[in-house]
Amino acid sequence: MLQNLGYHKAMTTHFADSPVKVRAGSAPGQPDHTPELDALYRSFEHELLVPLWTEIGELMPTQPAASAAPHVWRWRDGLLPLAQRAGELVPVGRGGERRAIALANPGLGGAPYATPTLWAAIQYLEPRETAPEHRHTQNAFRFVVEGEGVWTVVNGDPVAMRRGDFLPQAGWNWHGHHNVSDSPMAWLDGLDIPFQHYANTGFFEPGPDEVTSTAIPARSRSERLWAHPGLLPASQTEAQPSTPIGAYRWEYTDAALRDQLGLEAEGYPGVIEPGHAAIRFVNPTTGGDVLPTIRADFHRLREGIQTATRREVGSAVWQVFEGRGTITVGQREWTVERGDLFVVPSWVPLTIGAETPLDLFRFCDTPIFERLHLYRDHLEGASG
Amino acid sequence: MLQNLGYHKAMTTHFADSPVKVRAGSAPGQPDHTPELDALYRSFEHELLVPLWTEIGELMPTQPAASAAPHVWRWRDGLLPLAQRAGELVPVGRGGERRAIALANPGLGGAPYATPTLWAAIQYLEPRETAPEHRHTQNAFRFVVEGEGVWTVVNGDPVAMRRGDFLPQAGWNWHGHHNVSDSPMAWLDGLDIPFQHYANTGFFEPGPDEVTSTAIPARSRSERLWAHPGLLPASQTEAQPSTPIGAYRWEYTDAALRDQLGLEAEGYPGVIEPGHAAIRFVNPTTGGDVLPTIRADFHRLREGIQTATRREVGSAVWQVFEGRGTITVGQREWTVERGDLFVVPSWVPLTIGAETPLDLFRFCDTPIFERLHLYRDHLEGASG
Amino acid sequence: MLQNLGYHKAMTTHFADSPVKVRAGSAPGQPDHTPELDALYRSFEHELLVPLWTEIGELMPTQPAASAAPHVWRWRDGLLPLAQRAGELVPVGRGGERRAIALANPGLGGAPYATPTLWAAIQYLEPRETAPEHRHTQNAFRFVVEGEGVWTVVNGDPVAMRRGDFLPQAGWNWHGHHNVSDSPMAWLDGLDIPFQHYANTGFFEPGPDEVTSTAIPARSRSERLWAHPGLLPASQTEAQPSTPIGAYRWEYTDAALRDQLGLEAEGYPGVIEPGHAAIRFVNPTTGGDVLPTIRADFHRLREGIQTATRREVGSAVWQVFEGRGTITVGQREWTVERGDLFVVPSWVPLTIGAETPLDLFRFCDTPIFERLHLYRDHLEGASG
Amino acid sequence: MLQNLGYHKAMTTHFADSPVKVRAGSAPGQPDHTPELDALYRSFEHELLVPLWTEIGELMPTQPAASAAPHVWRWRDGLLPLAQRAGELVPVGRGGERRAIALANPGLGGAPYATPTLWAAIQYLEPRETAPEHRHTQNAFRFVVEGEGVWTVVNGDPVAMRRGDFLPQAGWNWHGHHNVSDSPMAWLDGLDIPFQHYANTGFFEPGPDEVTSTAIPARSRSERLWAHPGLLPASQTEAQPSTPIGAYRWEYTDAALRDQLGLEAEGYPGVIEPGHAAIRFVNPTTGGDVLPTIRADFHRLREGIQTATRREVGSAVWQVFEGRGTITVGQREWTVERGDLFVVPSWVPLTIGAETPLDLFRFCDTPIFERLHLYRDHLEGASG
Repeated sequence: MLQNLGYHKAMTTHFADSPVKVRAGSAPGQPDHTPELDALYRSFEHELLVPLWTEIGELMPTQPAASAAPHVWRWRDGLLPLAQRAGELVPVGRGGERRAIALANPGLGGAPYATPTLWAAIQYLEPRETAPEHRHTQNAFRFVVEGEGVWTVVNGDPVAMRRGDFLPQAGWNWHGHHNVSDSPMAWLDGLDIPFQHYANTGFFEPGPDEVTSTAIPARSRSERLWAHPGLLPASQTEAQPSTPIGAYRWEYTDAALRDQLGLEAEGYPGVIEPGHAAIRFVNPTTGGDVLPTIRADFHRLREGIQTATRREVGSAVWQVFEGRGTITVGQREWTVERGDLFVVPSWVPLTIGAETPLDLFRFCDTPIFERLHLYRDHLEGASG
Repeated sequence: MLQNLGYHKAMTTHFADSPVKVRAGSAPGQPDHTPELDALYRSFEHELLVPLWTEIGELMPTQPAASAAPHVWRWRDGLLPLAQRAGELVPVGRGGERRAIALANPGLGGAPYATPTLWAAIQYLEPRETAPEHRHTQNAFRFVVEGEGVWTVVNGDPVAMRRGDFLPQAGWNWHGHHNVSDSPMAWLDGLDIPFQHYANTGFFEPGPDEVTSTAIPARSRSERLWAHPGLLPASQTEAQPSTPIGAYRWEYTDAALRDQLGLEAEGYPGVIEPGHAAIRFVNPTTGGDVLPTIRADFHRLREGIQTATRREVGSAVWQVFEGRGTITVGQREWTVERGDLFVVPSWVPLTIGAETPLDLFRFCDTPIFERLHLYRDHLEGASG
Repeated sequence: MLQNLGYHKAMTTHFADSPVKVRAGSAPGQPDHTPELDALYRSFEHELLVPLWTEIGELMPTQPAASAAPHVWRWRDGLLPLAQRAGELVPVGRGGERRAIALANPGLGGAPYATPTLWAAIQYLEPRETAPEHRHTQNAFRFVVEGEGVWTVVNGDPVAMRRGDFLPQAGWNWHGHHNVSDSPMAWLDGLDIPFQHYANTGFFEPGPDEVTSTAIPARSRSERLWAHPGLLPASQTEAQPSTPIGAYRWEYTDAALRDQLGLEAEGYPGVIEPGHAAIRFVNPTTGGDVLPTIRADFHRLREGIQTATRREVGSAVWQVFEGRGTITVGQREWTVERGDLFVVPSWVPLTIGAETPLDLFRFCDTPIFERLHLYRDHLEGASG
Repeated sequence: MLQNLGYHKAMTTHFADSPVKVRAGSAPGQPDHTPELDALYRSFEHELLVPLWTEIGELMPTQPAASAAPHVWRWRDGLLPLAQRAGELVPVGRGGERRAIALANPGLGGAPYATPTLWAAIQYLEPRETAPEHRHTQNAFRFVVEGEGVWTVVNGDPVAMRRGDFLPQAGWNWHGHHNVSDSPMAWLDGLDIPFQHYANTGFFEPGPDEVTSTAIPARSRSERLWAHPGLLPASQTEAQPSTPIGAYRWEYTDAALRDQLGLEAEGYPGVIEPGHAAIRFVNPTTGGDVLPTIRADFHRLREGIQTATRREVGSAVWQVFEGRGTITVGQREWTVERGDLFVVPSWVPLTIGAETPLDLFRFCDTPIFERLHLYRDHLEGASG
């Protein structure tokens, strides 16, 4: 059925300086390395083609071979002083948009990516500074490991930022930040910038240079409408793709974790494993993840507890909120404390040991893989 | 609240030969280029950090700036003769797994990726050859632009491949192919290999060297159970994440397109725009896309029709099935005919003109972005 | 906390001639029958109140105690001749709307209800007659056990009715029927009239006296757009609450059932139990039931097969399409043949025995109970 | 095609004393009243058949003609003293199960049904009494208009009941109640008993005579796990068909309503109409209704406010929690105050006027009709 059209015929498309390099391999299943094969491979390059048979081991490994590396970034002696120095040298304003300094995973070639999908940065505002308003389709959140004094203004709704608060910020909402206090403030920014850059999905629009409201209420309007347990405003009960709550306050997170450990102490279920309480931040209109691409949760370990070792498809960034622990990610092990950030790449085993009572914030890209039916996890010692 | 800890303190993590390179910029919003700034940027590199303010234009463009380029690959004079030559020189079997030759988008640095998310390859089997069984989490399909004689065996169910057929193959199902005829056969393979490689989600497992069934029925068991219009087997009515139908036969696709044009001729709705019929291949248990990461559809244009110009978030690969047309993708324009493949990157405008009656197969990554609420499209001339 | 306000105080609401009758009981848990109790019960009646304790056995039985009774209605010697006689005596037209004669379950007090939720009627049109257009929120379908010649016109789309066809008709669509042949035609109408009457949800609107299209195509426009296996028109892929397919043709139903029995004969899964093939009619945009309140399926038993005995929450109406069988519904048993209709009330066990190859159509209210998480079933002999 | 089989042939099924009565009508569209017609109608009765044409006006009205009537039941001078009297005369225990006295809608023939779908009763426990454990598929809740001292024990989890609390109790969970105080306590029970009785879906099972836990914690275990705003326990994040929260506490309901009115006073959206705040109690795992068949919400009107007049498909029961108002339901109008209960049948217009600040609890069957795509509403003055 297929006629042998002959390869001597002129190729209609070709690339003078092709980016493609086809290397002959010698593993089982590879063709003999002959001049004819070499000519064929050169033709592939010329025609912008790559054979599967030379690449399959790299492209389709037997299990995920993470490109990102396990790594830790230190808060007190690393991120924070550098952010302070940036506060002295770098203006915040239109063009640069934010004084944010991103973790660059050593496995990702110098890109400002904590993992292939996730951005994690320390953002820093000097007293009385304003980060101008803009909006973008990238989904974002802030998490406050210490300090207060900044309000983030989301579509005109001022949201106070205080230690322990988790502040999601779904894509395409206007937002700016301003520091109304006499102290600088630093916090963690998490976004799906790497994913949206990879996938070419991002839109961005600048807004006013000043925030659209300078009010500084203790609670945002979003909380007054949406942050009541088990209650929705009857005027807006439809499912929303992202959470409408602008701030998940520490007092509630702390109480929920305390309750789980209390139930465990009384012999009732609730914790995720012995001595390990955990809550997920969710969208109250669906019970699902706060953002379409990002899951966020908070973990509390009793002193002396060591978690089971677990692998998961997808990547995560953790930040120690309080306490001291020992983290093992694949072949790496670190002792971490308040503010330290570490990265767990896809399918790399993670174990956490609590040297003191240990509180940790985590965010990860699991919603992407759950929605695409690609998620898996594995507990070491478990079968399957 | 934040103490000035001083940057002279020893950094606890550092990278001798950092992949990070921070370049000072001179655009609006950038800090003055001073020795102090330079020192700060060197510290960033040392600590594996990247500022947002130097990268934001690249990272967060005002609209998607596709990394992939529009490109066309020719079938009759390009892909097919090279595949034939590979048939002479390259064995098919364990290790190489498949004699498949992938489109390498010129914008993607030589990687075997048609777009950032999609793999498209010509696969080629000589008479009586077998591509051994394996399974992988990558979602796949085959589309047959010409020829027949190969059966793909999916979990033991032999599925005939014939011109015009679309054969989805969801992740983690065992499959192998064998050519029972005296002619070689070539077809299009589409997979989400680039996406799963990027996201580190892939698992792979080799199976038997021979296909597990050598029966060659005209219809697969999957079709006998599932490919009846509006009917599900009462024994299996639950929603499945991917389609259970192993083959979408040309006769049905053709009839559905003919019916749409017939309705249009009689003055009734159905076509997607004037003179342009289109069907989507769907999962009969949900009405949704056939695969979690891949949408597939088929288009038929009346002779002389030109489509509206449209942009979409996400990328697509098209193959001409029959006829001749003029394709405009961004700044590129080509005349295409049977078998030719072209790529439409994210947010690049596409127009198709039909010089003859024109049939086209398309696959794209839209389900990823719809599920993550990142999808947008735009018709030129439309507002918004 | 509750003050004893005294029952001598004037009641503010009362009912001179109360419909409430409270009867003192003597079962365990009932209060002693005293004059004081009698006075209390009379006060309940006066105040339109009923105690739970006298009614709980009736209201909350240990398992469903169906109000409907098992019953059979005969087609050839019962429904059909009476419908023919009605054809002679009763006009069809505005006001009466339809020449439809409904099954009145003997357990339901003379109401025209086959079961508490379902209406089943024989509808009859003389040659050249027209049943005028109207629309209503009641969901409907037609099933044709024999004959042809009538077109039902749904929102202007003429749909031919032929033996074996299942023709759903979702609520609030305009529809009328006309017989273009020289023979009378009778068919089965199924609706959720009893449910919507019970729940007070029904709206009704009369339309033109004549059907809005007198075309008599072999296939409806709805079939041309929607009745292709695994294909949706790309212009209309959104999920719809009810099926857009106007006719599920016998040729497809028959083929799907034949395929299931063929697979079984070859040793492959597909049938619902040994010798018993079954398909469900579904909405191609969701894979779910054709109508929000009504499930419809079709069953084929090999000669000599007896089904397992099964109970289900919810009620069903069956019609024999072809063949002869023995039906056991609770304490009742009948031999049935073509056209005969029988009712299976909630939680009453059903067994079907096939004396010949046996084809049966069924419709039931299961979607209501699945959506409300009230559905259960039980196979006799199974545990639980 | 249909042979005239003649009606003289013996009917194979008949009913000696048929419940069916077919009455000839004289409206437009009805057949002439002749002896032949009379004979046909007698045959219908004999064969358990009812024509549509005589019944259609009743069965398929142009808009819902509610069988239930608007009605009010008084709390302080009606329900409460009768319940107190029942407390003196009627034991609570196995057999009678509960000392509950149900509203019997005057339109529903004396059945203990507030509406066709909903049960509403006052339940009453004397000091130290126990209502024994049982479970049933009927979905239930309790709402406390005044008092405290009773714990309801749900699957072993003791849940305190206090003024203002809403306590859902999904079907098939074990539960009993006991009064640990020295005061009697009365509250509102709401269930879907009428719906499940109608639909023949109910199962019931008695449990222990005593509650399985006599602990009296201020917060239930369910609240400790689930009642934190926007937080789910990471160990149990799957969607559940009914809410896992055992108590929605008054303090949260009150705060949410106060917040809505506060937002309105500041000029921000949130209230459902001017001066009218409302929250819906929801399942935190889905954001949907607390129970599959029952919606519950809470309303607060500013003094002097009158709501718009609204019709809804489906029925509702309201209870005044605090304040005094004027209620108009169709042709009926009442002044109501604390504890008074009133019924709004399907499609009957409702207006509420607040003579004082007015708090009202409502429950309704809307989830049934939303899930079945039968819900509609209409604001008087609005078009459509």
